[in-house]
This record gives sequence, C-alpha cells and structure tokens, in this order.
Amino acid sequence: MPGLPYSDQEKDAIYRVIRERRDMRHFVRESIDESVLRRLLDAATQAPSVGYMQPWRFVRITSDEVRAKIYGQVKAEIETTGEAVGEKKEAYMRLKLEGINECAEVWVAALMEGRAKYVLGRRTMPEMDLASLSCAVQNIWLAARAEGVGVGWVSFFEPDRLAKLLSLPDDAFPAAILCIGHVDDFYPEPLLKTEGWDKERKLEELVYENSWFTPSNLATSD
Amino acid sequence: MPGLPYSDQEKDAIYRVIRERRDMRHFVRESIDESVLRRLLDAATQAPSVGYMQPWRFVRITSDEVRAKIYGQVKAEIETTGEAVGEKKEAYMRLKLEGINECAEVWVAALMEGRAKYVLGRRTMPEMDLASLSCAVQNIWLAARAEGVGVGWVSFFEPDRLAKLLSLPDDAFPAAILCIGHVDDFYPEPLLKTEGWDKERKLEELVYENSWFTPSNLATSD
Repeated sequence: MPGLPYSDQEKDAIYRVIRERRDMRHFVRESIDESVLRRLLDAATQAPSVGYMQPWRFVRITSDEVRAKIYGQVKAEIETTGEAVGEKKEAYMRLKLEGINECAEVWVAALMEGRAKYVLGRRTMPEMDLASLSCAVQNIWLAARAEGVGVGWVSFFEPDRLAKLLSLPDDAFPAAILCIGHVDDFYPEPLLKTEGWDKERKLEELVYENSWFTPSNLATSD
Repeated sequence: MPGLPYSDQEKDAIYRVIRERRDMRHFVRESIDESVLRRLLDAATQAPSVGYMQPWRFVRITSDEVRAKIYGQVKAEIETTGEAVGEKKEAYMRLKLEGINECAEVWVAALMEGRAKYVLGRRTMPEMDLASLSCAVQNIWLAARAEGVGVGWVSFFEPDRLAKLLSLPDDAFPAAILCIGHVDDFYPEPLLKTEGWDKERKLEELVYENSWFTPSNLATSD
C-alpha cells in the first residue's frame, strides 16, 4: 500500500534510526539470529540501483581461517595508514579501527562482475554502481540499528589482495568489510567526533544555491 | 537515548520505508515546505562518512535558467545513451527518465573539494567519499518517502559540464541530480522492473560464503 501516508509515529521511528545509526567498532561476542540476518539482506536488496543492475554481492565469512586472513590484511593497512596520517598518528592509533575479531558476522560487500555492459545511468558515471551498493549498505546499517545490532564499514584493506583471498572474478570489486554484531551500547555520536578527529560541519557549509559557495537560505532560515 | 530498544512498531516503520522507497521520475507541480526540506538535509548529514570527512555538498537550484540548462544537459545525455543501449532503445525511450521540469526541487549532490588530504579509510579506497555521499542520499530518499515526497537520482549527465555550469572547484565532483517533489503516487515496484528492463535477482544469486560463487545457507534457508 504505497499510497498510505506515514503516521507521525512512523516518521519519528524513521528519523530516530537515521539519527541513532552509528559506525560501530566495538562488539560483544554473541551470535545473531539468522532471521535477523535475512531481514538485513532483504533490506539491502530493496535499495535503489542504477539501471536496476542490482550490483550488490555479499560474501559471508564463516571460516575462522578466512576471517583471520582478513584481519591480517586490515591490520597491515591500518599500520600503513598510521604512517600516512603523520602528525595525527597518535590520535589515530587511539581509535580502535576495526572489530573484526569480536563481531558475530563479517560480510564482504562487493560489486559484481560483468558491470561494463550496464550502460543505463552509467555511460558517463560508471561509479554509480558503487553508489547503489552504498545505498544497500546504508539500508543494512539502519535495519541493523533498529534490530539493536551494530555495523561497521571497514575500508582499511587493499582491494586487490582481498579480492584474491575471496576468489573474486577480475572485474568484481570488494567495497566494504562489514562487521556486524551485538554491542554493549551504541556510541552517542560518531566516534571520530567524540575523539576530536574533526568537527561537525554546519549546514551553512554544506548547502549552496545555484552556484558553488553561494549561500542558500535553506541552510540558514529556521 | 541510543540504548533503548526499538519497539515492533518502530521496526515495522523502518522496514516499511525501506520497502516502499522508490526512485521517482513522475512528479506533480507543487512546492514543498521548507521545514520538510530542512529535515531532509538534517537526515543527509546524519549519514556515516569515511574518516568523518562529511564530503557531501548540495547545490539547490532555484534559478529557472539554471534548471533549464541542467535539463538540456540531461536531455543530451539521454539521447546519447539511447544510441548506446542499442536493441533496448525502444524500451528505454518508453521510460520517462527524468522529471527535472516537473519536480519542486532540483538539488545537485556533489563531493567537496580538497578531498585528497583525507586519508583515513581512503588510502587504498579513495572512492569511499562517494560511498559516504550515497549513504547521505539514501537517508534523504527514506526520509522523503516517509514525508510523502518522491526523490529521483538522475545520473544522466556529463560531470565536467555540470560542474562547469555550477562553478564547482576543479576537484569537486557532481554525483547526482536529485529531483525532489510531490507525486500522485509512488510506484508499487521499481519502474525498470515493471517495464521489464530486468528481473529481480534472487538472494541465492547475491550471497556467497567465504569464496565467490560458493552458495551460502543464509540465502536459501528460511
């Protein structure tokens, strides 16, 4: 019944989950019901996709050996990035940037093979496949938050190396390591904000009108 | 109060909006309250972003002249893609691929300038900035659906040409033309599915275990 309006209670729930979703890095070791995992997958596949290509694929890691190898790849990349961030290294190292060993589920979210033949909406913008996959992950994130389950999107890895580990076809692409698991509590705000890594930008910095840097009333009026 | 569990009614609302969100191409000419637009922007900026970079920028188009130029750019690209899709051209041309002239609001969603210095989570995966912007757009899409407002993500354009029209800095990037507007009704399913452009993929095709093409019980068990 797509036509029925949403009640105020429904709207409140939707804005609540958007507000309370967090990129989680701390998990407790407790398995997740498969029925919940199925609902997360269903939510993912209800995302929009450019030209209806449905480019999302998920590799669920159930092998301890494969998980340990993924952990090794992430650890190596975190150390390399630690060097790259230079002066911020100390703050960076304080952050616990992955929870791969603790979380119940590790899923690698990847772009499918054979994407070149999908032209609709992608002729000039081939990266729209990643946009579609990202919308699917956002659906997982929100649905999981409502289920009381935390999700972290880890992008500390060498895509070629991870692709090889999971036997991806040459033209597939791993975009995310998703850590999914129960948590003690959700962070009250983004962890990197709490840690002082960066400030929250004001709407005035984010919204322009007709031309870049031209302020928009939309961002300033209440 | 991030710690409080979600009620069944709240979960239902969240799964409902995930299920009923549509990429809209048909709009009715009716303006949208600024309070609604502000809520959409707030939802966008509550999205996750890699390294907390908040790379999302929005250019609201209020000038009829600029909107007409954007329409011209999209029309040109739709015609070019129409040639590129070849045999499917007839089906393609039946689709109304944009609603730029009808919708209340046209927003260009873009990646900010100066992104190269953001290394956290992006050293090997620079495209994570687009992933963050896409999550923000998905938040807009879902919030808008709850508000009874349709959103279409148009990616039929030449990014360089659109960037020039809106005076984007060289290293900023326009990722989406968002058409936002009231609608007569929401499509009951994705328009391209209804039009027979492609079929809905089954979960078994989308979920693997430990290695590509290895089936996962998660996708088949109920």
